Amino acid sequence: MDTESLSYSHPRTSPYKVGVPPKQKFWKEFATSLKETFLSDDPLRPFKDQSVPRKFILGVQAVFPILEWGRNYNLSKFKGDLIAGLTIASLCIPQDIGYAKLANLAPQYGLYSSFVPPLVYALMGSSRDIAIGPVAVVSLLLGTLLRDEIDPVKNPLEYRRLAFTATFFAGITQAALGILRLGFLIDFLSHAAIVGFMGGAAITIALQQLKGFLGIKKFTKNTDIISVLQSVFSSAHHGWNWLTILIGAAFLVFLLVAKYIVKQIEKGINHPSVGDIYFTGDYLLKGVRIGIVAGMVALTEAVAIGRTFAAMKDYQIDGNKEMVALGTMNIAGSLTSCYVATGSFSRSAVNFMAGCQTAVSNIVMSVVVLLTLLFITPLFEYTPNAILSAIIISAVIGLIDFDAAILIWKIDKFDFVACMGAFFGVVFVSVEIGLLIAVSISFAKLLLQVTRPRTALLGKIPRTNVYRNIQQYPEATKVPGVLIIRVDSAIYFSNSNYIRERLLRWLTDEDEKLKSGGLPRIQFLVVEMSPVTDIDTSGIHALEELFKSLEKRHVQLVLANPGPVVMHKLHASKFSNLIGEDKIFLTVAEAIETCSPKFAEED
Amino acid sequence: MDTESLSYSHPRTSPYKVGVPPKQKFWKEFATSLKETFLSDDPLRPFKDQSVPRKFILGVQAVFPILEWGRNYNLSKFKGDLIAGLTIASLCIPQDIGYAKLANLAPQYGLYSSFVPPLVYALMGSSRDIAIGPVAVVSLLLGTLLRDEIDPVKNPLEYRRLAFTATFFAGITQAALGILRLGFLIDFLSHAAIVGFMGGAAITIALQQLKGFLGIKKFTKNTDIISVLQSVFSSAHHGWNWLTILIGAAFLVFLLVAKYIVKQIEKGINHPSVGDIYFTGDYLLKGVRIGIVAGMVALTEAVAIGRTFAAMKDYQIDGNKEMVALGTMNIAGSLTSCYVATGSFSRSAVNFMAGCQTAVSNIVMSVVVLLTLLFITPLFEYTPNAILSAIIISAVIGLIDFDAAILIWKIDKFDFVACMGAFFGVVFVSVEIGLLIAVSISFAKLLLQVTRPRTALLGKIPRTNVYRNIQQYPEATKVPGVLIIRVDSAIYFSNSNYIRERLLRWLTDEDEKLKSGGLPRIQFLVVEMSPVTDIDTSGIHALEELFKSLEKRHVQLVLANPGPVVMHKLHASKFSNLIGEDKIFLTVAEAIETCSPKFAEED
Repeated sequence: MDTESLSYSHPRTSPYKVGVPPKQKFWKEFATSLKETFLSDDPLRPFKDQSVPRKFILGVQAVFPILEWGRNYNLSKFKGDLIAGLTIASLCIPQDIGYAKLANLAPQYGLYSSFVPPLVYALMGSSRDIAIGPVAVVSLLLGTLLRDEIDPVKNPLEYRRLAFTATFFAGITQAALGILRLGFLIDFLSHAAIVGFMGGAAITIALQQLKGFLGIKKFTKNTDIISVLQSVFSSAHHGWNWLTILIGAAFLVFLLVAKYIVKQIEKGINHPSVGDIYFTGDYLLKGVRIGIVAGMVALTEAVAIGRTFAAMKDYQIDGNKEMVALGTMNIAGSLTSCYVATGSFSRSAVNFMAGCQTAVSNIVMSVVVLLTLLFITPLFEYTPNAILSAIIISAVIGLIDFDAAILIWKIDKFDFVACMGAFFGVVFVSVEIGLLIAVSISFAKLLLQVTRPRTALLGKIPRTNVYRNIQQYPEATKVPGVLIIRVDSAIYFSNSNYIRERLLRWLTDEDEKLKSGGLPRIQFLVVEMSPVTDIDTSGIHALEELFKSLEKRHVQLVLANPGPVVMHKLHASKFSNLIGEDKIFLTVAEAIETCSPKFAEED
Repeated sequence: MDTESLSYSHPRTSPYKVGVPPKQKFWKEFATSLKETFLSDDPLRPFKDQSVPRKFILGVQAVFPILEWGRNYNLSKFKGDLIAGLTIASLCIPQDIGYAKLANLAPQYGLYSSFVPPLVYALMGSSRDIAIGPVAVVSLLLGTLLRDEIDPVKNPLEYRRLAFTATFFAGITQAALGILRLGFLIDFLSHAAIVGFMGGAAITIALQQLKGFLGIKKFTKNTDIISVLQSVFSSAHHGWNWLTILIGAAFLVFLLVAKYIVKQIEKGINHPSVGDIYFTGDYLLKGVRIGIVAGMVALTEAVAIGRTFAAMKDYQIDGNKEMVALGTMNIAGSLTSCYVATGSFSRSAVNFMAGCQTAVSNIVMSVVVLLTLLFITPLFEYTPNAILSAIIISAVIGLIDFDAAILIWKIDKFDFVACMGAFFGVVFVSVEIGLLIAVSISFAKLLLQVTRPRTALLGKIPRTNVYRNIQQYPEATKVPGVLIIRVDSAIYFSNSNYIRERLLRWLTDEDEKLKSGGLPRIQFLVVEMSPVTDIDTSGIHALEELFKSLEKRHVQLVLANPGPVVMHKLHASKFSNLIGEDKIFLTVAEAIETCSPKFAEED
């Protein structure tokens, strides 16, 4: 009894007035909204209250973070970077050769791509742990997309030129997203979709390796699991016909095939490739399209890696700046015979565990690759294909993240559907389709959220003044004659009709229940608006229609705790006059005190 | 003092435990979500607990609502319908002739479309006030889209066949959306965008009438304002050369031109046109594409009209059933020489005001049109073009809704941008571009909402236990050493990084302020989760990263009032163990009691 009456020390007859925020000017409101969208990380904060020359130095440092962290660089840090750099170099050389094959390019292009891009990244990047170079998924994606346009065996030169063109535009895409501060766009690829996509890509890549592993000559060009397994079993079938000589011959074939595979790797460093890029003609558009897709996927991978390790060591990654760095590095790469490079999951993890301190480990790796290109490529000429395949398989197998998939299943079933959709799309159809499925499901989820927001029936939690979801707190009690519904989303055109209909359905359902129980009918509908952060003109219309429908049923509409934006719009549209200012309360508790004073006093 | 300690009657040391809802089975959860998406209006409710024959009758009635309301039909209702039907018939005949011209079709096709579709609608539709027939905007849109494919002057037969094909697929689209229960898709066109689009279309249509009004012969085929005004002024320029005879000649020309315009209207009723529809060949795909666009626009208009008048008379419109009715009516129309019909804003309003009671007014109108076609078409043969133009202008001018535009400006600036974008797109470019702009801006708004949710700094409202947005309630006081932030949206992959960064930015800003004021630093970050209705795996990751970053800064993370779904996922992901169950509170007030007991006792 005294519990409730004392919970607000002002008398019940004058409930606390719901604040209407001061009206904001249109442009101020618009500018704030733009700022939150594009400059949410407040990039100009360090420049505030600084002298002009200082601002200039800060500006240069912002573009080249190496100038900032380089000043504190010391020998002990270099030790860590040296060891890490040598470790990832030893890992990247065979991987590069293999990945170049996934992209249908000669092996040296993989090595080239581990030389120039890491150097550029070291100057401009803000991640300390990422290892830059070609990666399996992007190589496979690029190879698939390029082969759809040009046959890499028949027209190797055109194929390579289109690869450089795509790399150039991948870089442009990445840098443009960063400069235009549109980095948030890659957030639209959900974590779950990425897990599925990566897992599927890993399996696809591993299956592709069966060609080298089993020494099969006639192998499908499709990447889906059915075509690949058909290739494998049809070649096994050929084997069955020669059963008697299988064991002996297989061994011989294996050795023979294994021997002459990595043909030759061209000695010497990257050639300039500016002249190879298609800036006109049919291939320009194709290059742009492939570049945008490959660039976005590469970006997603690099930013995810950057964020993961930054969180582990607790430093901040500036997403937009990072994109500019990755973009510049790929543009530079495309001019020097490299194809799309990005951050590698496996090598970044090794880099981190080997104790890297800064991006200098990338410079060390780059130098080792340079020396390899200059002096020891002949050593790799006789790397058996089977071993390369084994290296690639072991690298990509780590991309299949069972734990993450299980966690996703536990946490969010819809996410799991997205994850599996992407996975099966890649495995059974193709890399592009898998990607498309991943993006579509991610979008569908967002649209579902804004179209079908949740609503909840609230009840009073015993011995408190708090009203909560009855589903979550079964002990919460309903207030006789009052229906309290919380609307869990902003009310926009996409959901305003649904919300109106859903509220009326709650009322109909409840009234039916009460009727069959012989209880008094509902007289007040209290809509708890705390989660309703915004409302638009369609939303106001829906409220007006709701109000009219309720009037016909002799039910009063009461609002609890509309936020500042909503309150402002209720006033602007005169809706608050329509229902009456005295029907808008600060809390559900205050609304109940007015609607059902007897109930509020009980307990 | 006692205020606070008494607000919860249980002792402070044991705050009320946040409920974890019973775990739901995946399929049950999935089914509920599907049901809310596709069957949110609970269409099977009337069938519950009914016998099989009764279910059959209800099923037939569900498809043909006329069987239901027809039983209560009586003479007094018929009186209203008769008067309303005669009124809208007198309005629709000249409009139909004019609108057919907008669609580049002979006048009789407009009349045909006011004969068959209203009859079908009367049997199947659930709106009592809508007036069915050709409308200006859809006619213009259809005409523009069709003319891009086939020249209506050179190839009138092919043009007409494509028009019927488009109408057929418009009907299929509409019916399919209803049957698949995807009606909510049209909710994605916001009210504001429609207001802008309609206004722009009205101006475009009015401008087109200048041709007939001024008797200009050489008139542009483009619909944008610049081309049209150029046509008008260049023909005026010709006039300037003959200045002396202008006044006399203009009058003469006007009379001459006015006289022989509506050539002849074919006598007799609709011919069957099944054989005219392209079911194969190049035009099939074109017809499908045009049909989908025109069908969606027609649907939007009809559903908006249906909802508006239903709200005025307080009856329910079943959106999906309505779509099936509209779709069937257009399919039937396409087989009987009609082009796309839908609900007309102007005629529905007249219908309503003339006192219509049921869809019988549409039947009356249809019969009048039938009689016109059979007997009195010659009367219309000499309708001057100028008069037709005047009729059309006066009909469409009502589509320009200044009041709505002003209200939109007042309520929501972003909506206003969408409205103006659609308006200028239609006026300056074309109907399709205007539509595209309207849809794009609507989508951008939704994406912005899910990418950049609001966050708010909370303070304690004096003399209460309530914590609210400091911007809205400037008198609310901050709690020393505690930062309370409310996150105003579900945490999904699209915003999880933003939310994490935004929370850290709030903390940095506040700490800087406190530091400069020499005050103690923040020790607790209380995140008010009431509006966070859902969280996905990316969101959980973001919370984990936030927790780690806060640990490094020696700030404790505290959650207030997570909802049932969120609570379930925090448990499933073990995040609640990570931060400690005792850091999750039912309300902000309880969290503050624990974090800052002194403050909670003050006041």
